[in-house]
Amino acid sequence: MNTHIYPSKLLENAVEEFAKLPGIGRKTSLRLVLHLLRQSEVDVDRFSETMIKLRHDVKHCRICNNISDTDVCTICSSPRRDGTLICVVESIKDVMSIENTHQYSGLYFVLGGVISPMDGIGPADLKIDQLVNKIAEGNVREVIMALSATMEGDTTNFFIYKKLKHQSIAISAIARGVAFGDELEYTDEVTLGRAIINRVRFEAALAD
Amino acid sequence: MNTHIYPSKLLENAVEEFAKLPGIGRKTSLRLVLHLLRQSEVDVDRFSETMIKLRHDVKHCRICNNISDTDVCTICSSPRRDGTLICVVESIKDVMSIENTHQYSGLYFVLGGVISPMDGIGPADLKIDQLVNKIAEGNVREVIMALSATMEGDTTNFFIYKKLKHQSIAISAIARGVAFGDELEYTDEVTLGRAIINRVRFEAALAD
Repeated sequence: MNTHIYPSKLLENAVEEFAKLPGIGRKTSLRLVLHLLRQSEVDVDRFSETMIKLRHDVKHCRICNNISDTDVCTICSSPRRDGTLICVVESIKDVMSIENTHQYSGLYFVLGGVISPMDGIGPADLKIDQLVNKIAEGNVREVIMALSATMEGDTTNFFIYKKLKHQSIAISAIARGVAFGDELEYTDEVTLGRAIINRVRFEAALAD
Repeated sequence: MNTHIYPSKLLENAVEEFAKLPGIGRKTSLRLVLHLLRQSEVDVDRFSETMIKLRHDVKHCRICNNISDTDVCTICSSPRRDGTLICVVESIKDVMSIENTHQYSGLYFVLGGVISPMDGIGPADLKIDQLVNKIAEGNVREVIMALSATMEGDTTNFFIYKKLKHQSIAISAIARGVAFGDELEYTDEVTLGRAIINRVRFEAALAD
């Protein structure tokens, strides 16, 4: 859609702004902006001010880097959490995904990404030193690496493993394998190969 | 995704606001909000203030109801436009679509919708009186109805036709037929039937 056909510069500006968001093209952007135009001024003000407030006021937990409204997040400050377990994840989204499983009651540590030379992200761009310092305090019994099952994730796992292996803690990684509901025929050979190597005793699998 | 897993109320509020937009679910909303969080404060402020400014400052052309930054829109005020031709459309989006074809140099009239009893939209909810008054001024030679090819569009066409038929103007409707590139096999019978009834002489078709 050519830009010169916008009947209004204000409309065009708004469409441009929405189109900067990931996955939002110009057509979707126009649809969203025209929707906003049909809402009341109060509603549009609230929408916009919520984003401004979020960006200005949101904090990152000084212990785990998770998003938080307070200096220390609700997970790190909860007495019901097992403070001897730390799950290392890439992003806030991963914390939310794991929380959603209701299967984990330890704490988290948000790295802020994985080592990816292609994207110019080195170890120094991540919060690895902060993690090492936290472990050095001595209260942690096990670190669970829960990074992406990619080459970048594996590289980061290995880098952190080397940094932590001299400490007296257990270091584990979340299980890789065939996902529930997947048919073997459509599982890639790397996953299937690893699933065979890392097979578990049937009694253990039943206990899940 | 359960709401209680949001690590921050500010984040939750922002996700809720985005998720109110049409076609944006909670997962997409979270992705967009986390994207905004990674942008600079200046960028998020500009995004938000653009929406506020649009909603507060945008005008509707007092002649055609199209969106405009001024009292009379750029189309209605252009000396290069044929003021004797009025194309009646449902929405601002339709104006933009037709402008995009570069095949029309008359003016527009935005009705604001079509008559749709199911949605509680009657003739009084549309700008039909304003259209009738405009035609009564006497400068218009032809009204082109360009509403949706739906029952609601047809009903509205007919309602407006009845209001205008005593005026000395031509009333036309945009052609319905088989779209360019469509195979007859996959064209629905109503469209195909109308396309046969409203066939044009081959020479005329060639001239397009």
